[in-house]
Parts: sequence; structure tokens; C-alpha cells
Amino acid sequence: MRIAVDALGGDHAPWEIVSGAIAAARKQTRDEIILVGDEETIRPFASGAPENIRFKAARGAIGMGEDPATALRARPESSVAVAAEAVRRGEAEAFFSAGSTGASVAAALLGIGRLRGCRRPAIATMLPFDKPALLLDAGATISCRPQDLLNFAILGGVFAKRYLRLEGEPRVGLVNVGEEPGKGDDLAKEAHALLEAAEGVRFVGNVEGRDVGSGAADVLVTDGFTGNVVLKTAEGVASEILGMVRDAMTKNVVNKLAAAVLRPSLVAVRDRVDPENYGGSFLLGVRGSVVIGHGNSRARGVENAILGISRAGSGLVEESEAALAAGRRSVEEAS
Amino acid sequence: MRIAVDALGGDHAPWEIVSGAIAAARKQTRDEIILVGDEETIRPFASGAPENIRFKAARGAIGMGEDPATALRARPESSVAVAAEAVRRGEAEAFFSAGSTGASVAAALLGIGRLRGCRRPAIATMLPFDKPALLLDAGATISCRPQDLLNFAILGGVFAKRYLRLEGEPRVGLVNVGEEPGKGDDLAKEAHALLEAAEGVRFVGNVEGRDVGSGAADVLVTDGFTGNVVLKTAEGVASEILGMVRDAMTKNVVNKLAAAVLRPSLVAVRDRVDPENYGGSFLLGVRGSVVIGHGNSRARGVENAILGISRAGSGLVEESEAALAAGRRSVEEAS
Repeated sequence: MRIAVDALGGDHAPWEIVSGAIAAARKQTRDEIILVGDEETIRPFASGAPENIRFKAARGAIGMGEDPATALRARPESSVAVAAEAVRRGEAEAFFSAGSTGASVAAALLGIGRLRGCRRPAIATMLPFDKPALLLDAGATISCRPQDLLNFAILGGVFAKRYLRLEGEPRVGLVNVGEEPGKGDDLAKEAHALLEAAEGVRFVGNVEGRDVGSGAADVLVTDGFTGNVVLKTAEGVASEILGMVRDAMTKNVVNKLAAAVLRPSLVAVRDRVDPENYGGSFLLGVRGSVVIGHGNSRARGVENAILGISRAGSGLVEESEAALAAGRRSVEEAS
Repeated sequence: MRIAVDALGGDHAPWEIVSGAIAAARKQTRDEIILVGDEETIRPFASGAPENIRFKAARGAIGMGEDPATALRARPESSVAVAAEAVRRGEAEAFFSAGSTGASVAAALLGIGRLRGCRRPAIATMLPFDKPALLLDAGATISCRPQDLLNFAILGGVFAKRYLRLEGEPRVGLVNVGEEPGKGDDLAKEAHALLEAAEGVRFVGNVEGRDVGSGAADVLVTDGFTGNVVLKTAEGVASEILGMVRDAMTKNVVNKLAAAVLRPSLVAVRDRVDPENYGGSFLLGVRGSVVIGHGNSRARGVENAILGISRAGSGLVEESEAALAAGRRSVEEAS
């Protein structure tokens, strides 16, 4: 697989981005990684890079404060625009960027375009618990129609099966305020009916907030407003609780001694819920694999994100479009 | 203050309810607590009750599976209906029930009625973190208008100032997908404008999911769909992380020994985030204080809920109606 990497996007670009890309290239020697950026800037960081690292020229990154669409139109030579363009031209199947999320989404929509049958894209994020689940939309489409949520279920299912290497069909749940079918706002009620009717979606019903981390579903579908708030609440609360545990363990000398014994086990807990394990979110609904890294991504996150793209593999676009068409047909026949 | 307590509602009624009510009555000797239920059922549990415990006859509870409005109309003698009726008649200022949430909300709306100027009520819940915040609506009004969110901000502010014993005016935040004013769906954008315009609301702007537990605001306002999902996600993730920590601490003998030393400190962490600290949620927007206990409330939760009502104190209805009227006037003048 050929993967374009925006070497200039992110708080710790280019060093951490290039390091992560090189580490991934060493692990997945059959993949080819294309570092996109000003060559004079990134070359010095890439000395000793393996043979499956390539370079592609670009000039500058889109800043966090810029309006994405305006900035992209004004600067088609920016690194994220060039990375997206490489996917459009078929020079790469995927691109990764840890720069502005808005710029990555806009570059994908403007540069690569949407899948056939997909009105709006979704950001899919792994919730990092013992039993991981893919949550979408985490914020690409703030206001959704019921059909969008059905599409997200289909796209999320295709992706999760590959990414999580699931044996059977992924279990899809609808984030809602109660388990019974009649619960929720109009969007949730109508989406529930569509998800029940659609063939090819293994719908397990509504999932309440308390079960987003409990393994009740492999794929959790919701609108971009709710999904964004759920994701950030989950991350915020996890870090809050771990902080309280850490404070409790260091509040006196006796506790500190006992904590030293437990440190490896507790670091393991912290690492299990670390978003860097996945390294980024996936933009689904566009004609290519697009991975949006955290702005503060370090090399480990970048490496994991690139390895994740590789794990999801080739042919995602074709499989997703076929699944969207089949889903639409089955709903039309049912109605 | 006179507080009616539905002695028959909840998984552990009547024993845990009556025990909690008696404990609260002993602590707040100036309050009068009215136990509502079949006297032959509850009397035996209340032997040795202090003088400020009274009894009021009712027959049976509304079940979890029943349609609240239908059940209430059919059985005005049920415990939650009688408790609400006591508030309507002025025999009590507040009622508590750990029975079906839907039945408590319906009993309050049908029996007591809404505050002047308040289209829809909200369930307000304390998020149990180091820096507590009052989240509303946690699920009473699933689909909201912008004006509802302004009302929730006003009601939540009046209540939080009393309940949290705040010195200054409570800081009100709007749950949203980004900090900038233009973020969010139509509801969030319009509510943002109203909150900025309203006098008497100390609006601190948008609050993202990651900050719901960080003390960014004293009052967090959102629609009932988002609020319910946020609350349950926060509770679910907190319990998930604490479970992972517990597993890590008991996975071998050495860890168990070290964990024994830390146990008191870690139990303190668990207790700090225990929903039973507050014992229930508050239904705001109705002409009385209504507290909805968790279905699985134990005596400690019931006691804390009743003490919480007492802390919020008398005159909530009058103060809330005045604040709603002032808020409405200031917005009308601004527009």
C-alpha cells in the first residue's frame, strides 16, 4: 500500500512525524510511505530512512487558525493539499495528517471527493477501552439526517471488520438515551427504523452512554455533535480519574512506596486507554483512506496511525461503495 | 422544610428509603419528613423514628415498566402521585422518589405543574468530580429549542448557587463541539446568542466534552439528548477506569499487598466520584423541589438526596420564576 504522510502538519512536525513514518516503514516493508513537505526541511530528519520511504515536494502547512477551505484554495501547494492530490491521482491510496482537522477534512472533500451514495463524511474514532469500539461520527457532520446515520453504520462496519480483524459481521449500535426502540429524538427514532430495515447491517439496537466502553457494540453510530461530545467526555473523564488515582498514590511517603510496586501495572492501564494507541481518527465516506492524527501526535502515534491504515488494507473504497449501494437498495425495498 | 418521600419507589424500597429518610431526619431536625406509602408496609421499618418523621397514606408504587402518564391517571393513590399532590397542596415544599424516573417527571408535571415562563422542565445532575458541576438537561426534554436552553441556564444558576453554596454568580457553560462561538448545530448556535444576550446569566461560553469534569463551569447547559448521553458516558467511563485500576491491583500477590496499603486512598477516590454522594437528580422547572433518586438507591443515597433538598432550601420556586422573567425581559430588550 502507498501512504502519503503530511510531514509538516502537527505540533511536533516535522521531527515526530518523520520519525513515526520511518518506524512504520521499517515494520511494514511492503508498504511505501511518501513524505510530503519541503524537501530541504524534512530531508535532514530522514537520514538513514529505509528504501520504502519516498519524498514528494510541497510548500508549507495549513495553520490551525486558518479557514480550511479558503486556505486550501489559496495554497494548493500546501502539504495536506499535495497529500490529498496524491490520493486523487492514484499515486497513493491513503493519506495521514496531524495538522488542522478542518484542513484534512476539507482537503479530502475538495481533493479526493466523496464515495458514491454518501452525502456526508464521518470521522471514525476508536474508543480506547478494554473492549474497543469504533465511534462515528466524531465531528465531521454536526447536523445529520437519518440516512447519514445508516451510511455511517455501513461505512463503519466495513472499516471495523478490517481494522479490528473481526471474524463475524461487526455489531452496530445506535447511541441513544435508552435501550427501547421508541427512545430518543426524531433523528434517533428514524435512524433506528432504517438500521433495523437495512440488510448487511448487524444492528444490535440502542446503546446508552454508560455502555460506550463496555463492548456492547463494535461500531457506535451517532451524529457529529453527539459523537464529538461523547468522545471528548470519555477522554476527559478517563484522564480525570487517572489523575485522581495518581494524586492518591503520591500523597504521602507510605503511599509512594506502595505505588512504586504497582507502577508497572498502572502504567499498563494508562497505556491501554491512551489515544496514541490508535494515533488518529479515520475519515470515512471519501474515495481514499484518510487518517487524521491528533495535533500533538508523537512518533508513536504517527507510527500506529500508519500501521492502522495498512491493517485496514487496500480496496476499502470499492467495498464501501458496494456496501452503501446494497444498504440503500435493501431500505428502498423495505419501504 | 417539609419534604415528602415516596417510601415505595426504588429497587430497595421500602427498607433503604425509610432508613435514609430517618437518617436525614435525625441530621436536619428542623425539617419534617413525610413518608408516603401503605402504612402497614412502612410502619414496621420506621420503628424508633424521630419526631420529625410523619406518615401519609398511599397505595402501591408505579412500576418501571408502566407508561407513566397512563399509570398516574389510573392510580392517583399511588405513592409518587400522593407525594406530588402533597406538594401541590402546600403540605410539602419538595418530594423525593427513587421509583421510575418517568413517573416522577410525569407526577411533577401533572400534579404540581410548571413554573411560569418555563415551557419544558430539565433534569439537573451533579457530575461527581473534584470540581463538581451541575449538568442539565440530563434527559427530561429530549428535543429542545434555544429558549429552553436559556431557561435551563437560569434555573440551573439559581439552583447551583444555593446547592453548591457559591459566593459569586455561577459560571454557566454551553456543552458544544468547540470553544469558538460559531461552533455547533443550529440549536447550539442560537442558544449561544441567547446566553450572551441574557442579563443575570454569567455565561462563560462553550465547554467541550473534555472539560465537563475540569471545573470550567458550575452549570453545564445542553439539550436532554446530549445531556443524557454525556452523563451516562461520564459515569460509565469512570466506572470502567476504576475497574481497570482494581484489576491491575489484584492481579498478583505482590500487587495485592501494595494495594492493601493504598486501599483507603483509592476508596476515597471511588467515593468522590460515587453518584450516591448526591443521591439523585433535581427536576427543575416545576413548582416545587423534586428529587429523582437512582432506582438502586441505598439509604446513604436517599439521605444525601434529602439533605441536598434541604441545602437548596425554601423559596426556590419564587426565586426561579423571578429569574426566568428577568432573563426573558433582558433578551427581548436586546433583540
